[in-house]
Amino acid sequence: MTQMIRVTYLIETPGDPEAIAAKIAADQSTGTFTELPGETEALRARHAARVESLTPLPDHDQPAIPQGAGITGPFRRARATIAYPLESIGTDIAALITVTTGGVFAMRGLTGIRVVGLDLPQAFACHPGPQFGIEGSRRLMGVPQGPMIASIIKPSLGLSPEDTAQVVRMLCEAGVDFIKDDEKMMSPAYAPLKARVDAIMPVIRDHADRTGKKVMYAFGISSADPDVMMRNHDHVVAQGGNAAVVNINSVGHGGFSFLRKRSQLCLHAHRNGWDLLTRHPGLGYDFGPYQQIWRLLGLDQFQINGIGAKYWEPDDSFVQSFADVSRPIFSDADRPLPVVCSGQWGGQAFETWRRTGQTLDLMYLGGGGIHGHPNGPAAGVRSIRHAWQAAQAGLTIQQAAAEDPDFRAAYEKWGRP
Amino acid sequence: MTQMIRVTYLIETPGDPEAIAAKIAADQSTGTFTELPGETEALRARHAARVESLTPLPDHDQPAIPQGAGITGPFRRARATIAYPLESIGTDIAALITVTTGGVFAMRGLTGIRVVGLDLPQAFACHPGPQFGIEGSRRLMGVPQGPMIASIIKPSLGLSPEDTAQVVRMLCEAGVDFIKDDEKMMSPAYAPLKARVDAIMPVIRDHADRTGKKVMYAFGISSADPDVMMRNHDHVVAQGGNAAVVNINSVGHGGFSFLRKRSQLCLHAHRNGWDLLTRHPGLGYDFGPYQQIWRLLGLDQFQINGIGAKYWEPDDSFVQSFADVSRPIFSDADRPLPVVCSGQWGGQAFETWRRTGQTLDLMYLGGGGIHGHPNGPAAGVRSIRHAWQAAQAGLTIQQAAAEDPDFRAAYEKWGRP
Repeated sequence: MTQMIRVTYLIETPGDPEAIAAKIAADQSTGTFTELPGETEALRARHAARVESLTPLPDHDQPAIPQGAGITGPFRRARATIAYPLESIGTDIAALITVTTGGVFAMRGLTGIRVVGLDLPQAFACHPGPQFGIEGSRRLMGVPQGPMIASIIKPSLGLSPEDTAQVVRMLCEAGVDFIKDDEKMMSPAYAPLKARVDAIMPVIRDHADRTGKKVMYAFGISSADPDVMMRNHDHVVAQGGNAAVVNINSVGHGGFSFLRKRSQLCLHAHRNGWDLLTRHPGLGYDFGPYQQIWRLLGLDQFQINGIGAKYWEPDDSFVQSFADVSRPIFSDADRPLPVVCSGQWGGQAFETWRRTGQTLDLMYLGGGGIHGHPNGPAAGVRSIRHAWQAAQAGLTIQQAAAEDPDFRAAYEKWGRP
Repeated sequence: MTQMIRVTYLIETPGDPEAIAAKIAADQSTGTFTELPGETEALRARHAARVESLTPLPDHDQPAIPQGAGITGPFRRARATIAYPLESIGTDIAALITVTTGGVFAMRGLTGIRVVGLDLPQAFACHPGPQFGIEGSRRLMGVPQGPMIASIIKPSLGLSPEDTAQVVRMLCEAGVDFIKDDEKMMSPAYAPLKARVDAIMPVIRDHADRTGKKVMYAFGISSADPDVMMRNHDHVVAQGGNAAVVNINSVGHGGFSFLRKRSQLCLHAHRNGWDLLTRHPGLGYDFGPYQQIWRLLGLDQFQINGIGAKYWEPDDSFVQSFADVSRPIFSDADRPLPVVCSGQWGGQAFETWRRTGQTLDLMYLGGGGIHGHPNGPAAGVRSIRHAWQAAQAGLTIQQAAAEDPDFRAAYEKWGRP
């Protein structure tokens, strides 16, 4: 039986959604703007994409993409699932993206277009997927159970390698499991990656020697040049590091794929730039299909914001993202570790626990919530650990604050209604 | 003097654009959601980004991104130019993108955000830029002057390698300078890249032997795996090919950069997927900053649609794109060959000539306009060459149709009002 790649689109048009769906299927396989002698019935039968289902949605008065004066509503909407023969695309991620989405966003007659579903045949299990994922992350951090508590270097930019190492020492002593470079920190002239690795890894090793705890440090190795990114990777490995932050959209599919195939590091993915692809509900990509592609390419840990994030993303969207990354594509091994982050201070542990299926298989990352704790970063880490234990025990946030002075101090700073 | 990277944003907010611009500058350099001990004045003075100018624009009644019930207009708009110290970013393209745009799209309080300008300091001239560009493309095609006339394999998908070779023979005999794979054609099971190269290159070589004219064929070598893409590249080179189609957004910055550093091929860039980034005027990227980045990375030929394209893009946008790619970033050598395409049949030569500064430094690509010509593809190519000569001579489209039977046949099929 022919294997099919199924893509579901949210379509908006002042015309007929059914005609638009049929046009997507034709344009993305065999058609052009005029009839051609070579486009035979036999060729179409074997290679044409097909509209499998079309579900009408309520009309909109306003178009997702503003239109000129001549184009008026109602703007008709539908979810359309189109099946593409695997044989016509193959399993290459660039082919998948170009054929099923590349031209679709360019189509005339649409006033909105969003990719909302991706159902890949088993053949796509050929991609590497995570090397470490949830289990490997736990093993490397020495955290067999419970949430992994993480922090980030602050200020984000501007610290020398030596100053950064001091912050690392402070965070190690504060008791975190994981520390990362800010995603904006890669290799600027005042703090090159190599110098930062050389200043930071002795602190990590020294802390491990003294306490038996090897904190995972994710270095910002991203480069748009894969050769440079691999040199960065190799230097981190040579100095005993075990993780890296990768700005997936900035390095792109090819850069990430190249790294993953050679990587000895746990790859912590930062999706900056993603918001452009998803923020307008009538345009772009749902996180669901987007994250599938990056998981196949092989990220290990995936930042997905959190409850009460400091960014635009609503809580419901984060909850959906958590469910998305937790759902196997082909097997449990292709699930990355969800990294809950952005404006987190412990107070969000309660709702996070409640809304993500009461799992502790997550990294919980506090930046300002640890660095800015009134009693210092160690109190910040303790307050977050206490919050998670309290959430797991079924306490309310107020009960947790009453019980623990560190969490109470955080609650009084950030949690008062 | 400190070198600065200047990025201009179109900002939309129900709040104060000046405050939003200041927040972008802070968040993208040193800030987080709470005051931190390490964020000193000295650090800020050296590393902070600064708002250099803010130009108010007329309010909008509707937000670019739909908002919940509580958020009402007017939505205030401004162009804001923010200067980032080069020292804090460096010249890596991934760093540039992450720091100046990655987080910006995520910011709360914005209802629209678009990158509309990018002014890079001389340090970015470190990037390779085009290897062949306009002059190299002319040399390889043997077209010292006039527009380069191009076509594409049709139907886009579904042909066997042998059938494709027949189409190539037909197009060579029709007199084109350049042929390309459809961007959706990479290496599917029924027509793997290697088999297509092996079937097509003998036709190209044979035609060159017989006529002295070596038609440039751009093979779809794209892969999200740079190792695979390089193997594809190497096979094209081994068989005497000299060009490739690359789906730049699907391979990403890293994949493209890796290829360019090793490439012996003229790289014909297809920007499928770009429309998502630009189609909503209140969101994403203008083509101007986008194309600068890809030019620095080193593409040689850049598809930019055309007058009366079959896609959504209005003519004015194409005209602006043509001007964008024709403007040197650091020198004339960083200009790619503009590829005018999409629904072109020759009739658009007149307005293209008039609106792109009366230049012939372009590739003019007809798909259906050549394959679908009533008198066959050779007549299609002749009709396009005639149209360009007529446009250059100052004739109207009707005069050109009266003068030449091939162009008249095309005009009667596609050009009648």
